Amino acid sequence: MEQRVIDTLRRVFELNGFLGIETRAVEQGSSLLKKGETSKEIYLLSRLQEVGQENDTPVEERLGLHFDLTVPLSRYVVEHSGDLAFPFKRWQIQKVWRGERPQEGRFREFVQADIDVIGNGDLPDHYEVELPLVMVTALEQLREFGLPKATVHANNRKLSEGFYRGLGLTDIEGVLREIDKLDKIGADEVSKLLVEGCGASEAQARACLELAELTAANGTELAEKFDALCAAHGIATDGSNESYALAREGLDTLAMIVDEAARIRPGSVIADLKIARGLDYYTGSVYETFLDGAASLGSICSGGRYDNLASQGNRKYPGVGLSIGLSRLVSYMLHTAGAHASRVSPAAVLVAVWNEDERTASNRIADALRARGIAADVAPTAAKLGKQIKYADKLGIPYVWFPGQDGAGDEVKNIVSGDQNPADATSWRPDTVVARQTVVID
Amino acid sequence: MEQRVIDTLRRVFELNGFLGIETRAVEQGSSLLKKGETSKEIYLLSRLQEVGQENDTPVEERLGLHFDLTVPLSRYVVEHSGDLAFPFKRWQIQKVWRGERPQEGRFREFVQADIDVIGNGDLPDHYEVELPLVMVTALEQLREFGLPKATVHANNRKLSEGFYRGLGLTDIEGVLREIDKLDKIGADEVSKLLVEGCGASEAQARACLELAELTAANGTELAEKFDALCAAHGIATDGSNESYALAREGLDTLAMIVDEAARIRPGSVIADLKIARGLDYYTGSVYETFLDGAASLGSICSGGRYDNLASQGNRKYPGVGLSIGLSRLVSYMLHTAGAHASRVSPAAVLVAVWNEDERTASNRIADALRARGIAADVAPTAAKLGKQIKYADKLGIPYVWFPGQDGAGDEVKNIVSGDQNPADATSWRPDTVVARQTVVID
Repeated sequence: MEQRVIDTLRRVFELNGFLGIETRAVEQGSSLLKKGETSKEIYLLSRLQEVGQENDTPVEERLGLHFDLTVPLSRYVVEHSGDLAFPFKRWQIQKVWRGERPQEGRFREFVQADIDVIGNGDLPDHYEVELPLVMVTALEQLREFGLPKATVHANNRKLSEGFYRGLGLTDIEGVLREIDKLDKIGADEVSKLLVEGCGASEAQARACLELAELTAANGTELAEKFDALCAAHGIATDGSNESYALAREGLDTLAMIVDEAARIRPGSVIADLKIARGLDYYTGSVYETFLDGAASLGSICSGGRYDNLASQGNRKYPGVGLSIGLSRLVSYMLHTAGAHASRVSPAAVLVAVWNEDERTASNRIADALRARGIAADVAPTAAKLGKQIKYADKLGIPYVWFPGQDGAGDEVKNIVSGDQNPADATSWRPDTVVARQTVVID
Repeated sequence: MEQRVIDTLRRVFELNGFLGIETRAVEQGSSLLKKGETSKEIYLLSRLQEVGQENDTPVEERLGLHFDLTVPLSRYVVEHSGDLAFPFKRWQIQKVWRGERPQEGRFREFVQADIDVIGNGDLPDHYEVELPLVMVTALEQLREFGLPKATVHANNRKLSEGFYRGLGLTDIEGVLREIDKLDKIGADEVSKLLVEGCGASEAQARACLELAELTAANGTELAEKFDALCAAHGIATDGSNESYALAREGLDTLAMIVDEAARIRPGSVIADLKIARGLDYYTGSVYETFLDGAASLGSICSGGRYDNLASQGNRKYPGVGLSIGLSRLVSYMLHTAGAHASRVSPAAVLVAVWNEDERTASNRIADALRARGIAADVAPTAAKLGKQIKYADKLGIPYVWFPGQDGAGDEVKNIVSGDQNPADATSWRPDTVVARQTVVID
């Protein structure tokens, strides 16, 4: 199941010109501690021989497991900047680890599927619409596994920041952090936190919540609604207002994103100004992705634009990236969306064995089939025929092959339909190609 | 490079009816400490929040990273015994971690590619020839990447143990451990260790070394040489000698393996009685695999039969398995065998952009190509054409597509040959399908 999903995503990413990379799971503590809210959820490593002495080494010099694929990418880009062609587009599908207390539906170890594009010095903003659309295309391909339609909800940090500043607020990161909790704890609680923790008045808190309620399907609607909200809260919408100018910069990018996305894939991306993202490294566009009828699952694919994550001296490497939480998504597909895992053999044929002395003949038939790309297994023992057929059935192998005896030709039985026919291992093909799950996760 | 090698191995394993599984990287300390010499090289985990208190928890109750794929398999089989069809044939390709001091050419983190077959209660010995042959077939497929011919060297623990006991030795594990060092430290040193550490006389040590020198390409040769060696050292070769009977049991299995392998794939498996394997869980056949002209690399694929690794109450799950050290092998292929990694885009075409207002037209062309399975990228900026072509060249993209302007049709240029021709995105195909590396490892 998961392997098929990975193969599907990889195909879409490569069709779109993303290069696959893999980074080591183990990074220096100093890299891991640099950025992001999740830096508190790191697993540190210690060698068994060092147990008891591991705390002699500062955390920065110890090793730890990566908790996302963005921090390793920024290290990778800086280390290989001389060899890469920029903008550098990469996909990466790997396990990540979070040192959190395990809870229902939360894993310590899970697979993320990321795409990012990294520029050298600058990065054109058309990537801020292209990357979410690649993810929408990829998620669309997963609908064959029962996944509902996905919609990207986009916002822009500059828009939010400009609006908050226009209201007179200054703790921008604090406000974003509280707004990010909206779906979890509701408007009343967020309002309280804005007043108590971010220096907002009741009116300012209400304005922040009104902004978070704003959604729009196109750029014109977005601009009209936003300007109306500014007017309602006394924010001047002329060029002399620096806060509005900042907000407008974000709004223009967001408008471009929803309009361009609507042209290419109508209904795939909407502007939704409650999207805040907890991570502190986003500087422009931010995205979350929701599935129809699966609000409780939360965002399944999130990301944004980050201009300051990777740098080398004065040189900056701005990026845009999105990440699918693949383990959670596959878990949802298995438990809710009707997909199902099963432990079936990849073999299409089980070659029977009449007696152990004739195993070589059965092996030869299997090898002839394999040479033609047909996966084949050979019965483990020369048991009674019924037992051999039962073994094929338990493994989900649809055909059983009977080697010819005493000069008779071979025959093959479809154990689902019961049909049995003469067959030759150098020319026979299975009737149907059954899509098969090949990797079982545990 | 590594991804293509993995895809090749996976295809061979599945053609042979092996089911892919993946197990979590993090296991309980108690599982990890159970078996095998490498249990001393475990990385233990601690949550960042617990730094300083981690030693309050006994090692058995802490979490650690798996150091091989055999220990996790034995846990998996016991946990899922009710759902599996036995014999259970599985492939597994994953990272493993060793908490060793990093040295030249040794990684803390590497990929292993394993196949194993596990029986429920018993396991027919024909798997002891089939599994090494599947690995030979897989390694044969890697010759297209420049890998030299591989030969499996097989021995049997019962043969060695019977011979040592026949000589009057009792510290069998000790002798095997020292013999395993033969290639590293030479005969003189091993002889010394046998005398000093394993209670052997000079004559017994010499006999052990003579056994280790014995190789044979077929069963008859093996039996003749072995019986001659027994006679030379006063070991009775009649049925009344229990030690010889044990050795003979191992010899018969080993003879079956080399003879059967010679029938199917001549020259792929030889009997080589110096193969000992350090791991304590092997109970019968043991294998190491060497590449022609790469003796210094050591064994690239090792394994054996283990009858007591997994059990549940009185129920045993005997197994046969082999493991390829994939990272070392890929490293060898890159540095010595002439294969090479490069950072090329998976895209076959770069669609040029005349100016930013016409980017949508270029995106449409790219999407039309992708819909037909042709990987395409779009130029990052509407730079001068020469710069766009240079970008394609740096990424190894062979074609640049020029969208038609002012009513003219599209054209496509092969930037390797220089040919430029009219083209239609709904029907054009690249001339050659270039095999591409898709995952870069770092």
